[in-house]
Amino acid sequence: MAERNIGITLLGFGVVGGGVARLLTEQRELLAQRTGIRFDLRHVVVRSTQAASAKAEDAWAQRLPFTTDANAAIDDPAVGVVIELIGGTSTSAALIERALKAGKPVVTANKSLLAEKGPELFALARKHDTCIAFEASCGGGIPIIQALLRDLAGNRIDALLGIVNGTCNFILTKMTQNGWSYDQSLAEAQRLGFAEANPAMDVSGRDAAQKLSILASLAFGVRLTEKDIHIEGIDRLDAADIKFASELGYVIKLLAIAERGAGDRITLRVHPTLVHKTDVLADVSGSFNAISVYGHALGHALWYGRGAGRMPTASAVIADLVGIGLGSTQAVFKQIRILPDQTSPASVLPFAELESRYYLRVMAKDEPGVMAAIATTLGKHRVSISAILQHESEHSKLVPIVISTHLAKEGAVAKAITEIDALAVTQGPAMCLRMIEQPEEFGEAK
Amino acid sequence: MAERNIGITLLGFGVVGGGVARLLTEQRELLAQRTGIRFDLRHVVVRSTQAASAKAEDAWAQRLPFTTDANAAIDDPAVGVVIELIGGTSTSAALIERALKAGKPVVTANKSLLAEKGPELFALARKHDTCIAFEASCGGGIPIIQALLRDLAGNRIDALLGIVNGTCNFILTKMTQNGWSYDQSLAEAQRLGFAEANPAMDVSGRDAAQKLSILASLAFGVRLTEKDIHIEGIDRLDAADIKFASELGYVIKLLAIAERGAGDRITLRVHPTLVHKTDVLADVSGSFNAISVYGHALGHALWYGRGAGRMPTASAVIADLVGIGLGSTQAVFKQIRILPDQTSPASVLPFAELESRYYLRVMAKDEPGVMAAIATTLGKHRVSISAILQHESEHSKLVPIVISTHLAKEGAVAKAITEIDALAVTQGPAMCLRMIEQPEEFGEAK
Repeated sequence: MAERNIGITLLGFGVVGGGVARLLTEQRELLAQRTGIRFDLRHVVVRSTQAASAKAEDAWAQRLPFTTDANAAIDDPAVGVVIELIGGTSTSAALIERALKAGKPVVTANKSLLAEKGPELFALARKHDTCIAFEASCGGGIPIIQALLRDLAGNRIDALLGIVNGTCNFILTKMTQNGWSYDQSLAEAQRLGFAEANPAMDVSGRDAAQKLSILASLAFGVRLTEKDIHIEGIDRLDAADIKFASELGYVIKLLAIAERGAGDRITLRVHPTLVHKTDVLADVSGSFNAISVYGHALGHALWYGRGAGRMPTASAVIADLVGIGLGSTQAVFKQIRILPDQTSPASVLPFAELESRYYLRVMAKDEPGVMAAIATTLGKHRVSISAILQHESEHSKLVPIVISTHLAKEGAVAKAITEIDALAVTQGPAMCLRMIEQPEEFGEAK
Repeated sequence: MAERNIGITLLGFGVVGGGVARLLTEQRELLAQRTGIRFDLRHVVVRSTQAASAKAEDAWAQRLPFTTDANAAIDDPAVGVVIELIGGTSTSAALIERALKAGKPVVTANKSLLAEKGPELFALARKHDTCIAFEASCGGGIPIIQALLRDLAGNRIDALLGIVNGTCNFILTKMTQNGWSYDQSLAEAQRLGFAEANPAMDVSGRDAAQKLSILASLAFGVRLTEKDIHIEGIDRLDAADIKFASELGYVIKLLAIAERGAGDRITLRVHPTLVHKTDVLADVSGSFNAISVYGHALGHALWYGRGAGRMPTASAVIADLVGIGLGSTQAVFKQIRILPDQTSPASVLPFAELESRYYLRVMAKDEPGVMAAIATTLGKHRVSISAILQHESEHSKLVPIVISTHLAKEGAVAKAITEIDALAVTQGPAMCLRMIEQPEEFGEAK
């Protein structure tokens, strides 16, 4: 059968870039056989060709067409697609803009850039009759972006939530399964390459929030920014909370949650969350990701897979390349109207109005009247207790009192905690975590 | 923005057909807003318009354009897409052929038809420069077909396995969670509409096998028929086996399994399978489906969702409609070369050569030497025992001896069982089930 060639410029030769180069080299015949397209890697743009060659241990990698001239590599008339995998938000933006202005489709895994400048870049692509593909920006190898763009089009989406940061999930899994501290678990994650030397973007929840802003903007057809999202990281978590949660029947996961609430207002949040042990998300371990979507017709669906890493993310980049090669990605990008350059800013529910169940851990003196004081304070703010966990005191003067609540308003709980922390018999700040039941399947999914 | 109209003929107004009509009616504005396309339901072909109107309880459904003239509805020049949801393999094939010959894209959920005549129909679509979309044929609302067609193109797929029959999964879940018998669980499934009056297609495993033939043909890029698949249903299962499996740490699921084995030969099977309780598939309950795919780059990924039912399946039909409206489905169908009209017959490993772990339940007399006789027979066939479960005998003269094995060859196990069944101290036939560990992630997924 007839074959076509598509020339490719790859910007960046880091972890994912190396994986993409490997797949394009090793799977060249397979891809041609499956798609009728020969994907020719014509330029691999790096900071230093010497350093890149030195890094390339394999023979195939040493033969890659390294160059430092990004502009020439993008402008090469034989290049039909540009893959941006250098990260950051300034150089990458300039190079992507250059490619788009030349009418060349861009594939990127750059969630920070899309979270910050997605609407402008999408609009620029549209103006030049081309497209941006970003399957690899969220959920690693999991093909969730295409699903949201196209396969769920007949659904009113009511919720999208999940585990979208493999670093945090690895750390929490270690804390849960091995009983390790946060610091010890982080060190292990760093040792194994699941966390960076500076893990702030991951453990603070910001990385998850950037992904949520992309995913939720497609799910709800609205424009979002990171600022719309309430963000709490995992770095304040104590091993004791993992243990108490387990006693209550829960595991703690960093969830990114977007829900359609009353009046179609959306709640957006990233925080450590108590997930019931019977919940599918509770079993998502290590560096895996999982994303649940609730559609009014589809019901509950979930995508699970490796959320990061060299080859899984490269797999998503290749998916985008193939989609561009076949023209299906352009067809969807150009016509579908849920990309954030074409939608309106979301109506976001103020975080204080969120309704949730809560897990509270209060460190209190082991003396009469303490529980009454805490319970009275919660009652005053109409926060209703669902379960209490208090073990016999050992040597310590302060004992942890763990309380789970029924549904309550975030604002009310925050006020109650402030008052509890101010009690003479407690030592603040109390630990406050949110609990989640997977949303009911709304509508008619049955 | 500019809008286009696409006229639709819907063949069939059963469970899924009704759901599609509902989505097209109620989500008309949403779909137009998202896609720029107005999907006009121009004909709903039924056997009797009176019966259809009588069945239609809602006002919107009574106003549907019912007709009994399928040919005219397909030929209508204002109709651009034909949706086939009447099932069966003769009338449906003739109508699909008529639509394809007119160059009209066809959307179908008809797995039986595709399993039987997929290659011919795909070839016919290709000849007339149009396409067949069949997202709804496997996994209900789960968008797995598009993922296999396009998003995993850069992967060598090593295994695809999962729970693809909601009826069986519902029955097994009831047997597991409630301790019910097979008959009682089946009756409950029928009462709730999860099983048909004649449940043979589902409980025999044939429905799952038809879906596996479609999924595996795409995953491995080969042509398959139902005959390539070893099929065992759930109708022989005993509540005791569910209980013993649980004691060993497993749950029993009807799995459809396709694996690439030695020499790239493929094993294809549908049978009740012991899945470890820590496995993600063990938590897939009720009528939900889940499909695991192992790609050499992607690693392990899993799709989960409602595998059947009115609205989830309708959601998948709408996904195909939208894909056709946007042109992305045609782009993929026409160029991607893994559809079974363009691939070669699979090289299938003879089932006797399968390697698996096994669960055996032998009913034996409670007397000395029994275990020795069984163990000796297994040893003779090089089947190595991994665990034994035998409880103290109660009143019964026969006691169940439960044995799990290490990896062994199917053929050897079958011979051993024949000999064990022939022992004077046992009463055959022994129950033999296969156990599965989720495949290792091959290659470089990390």
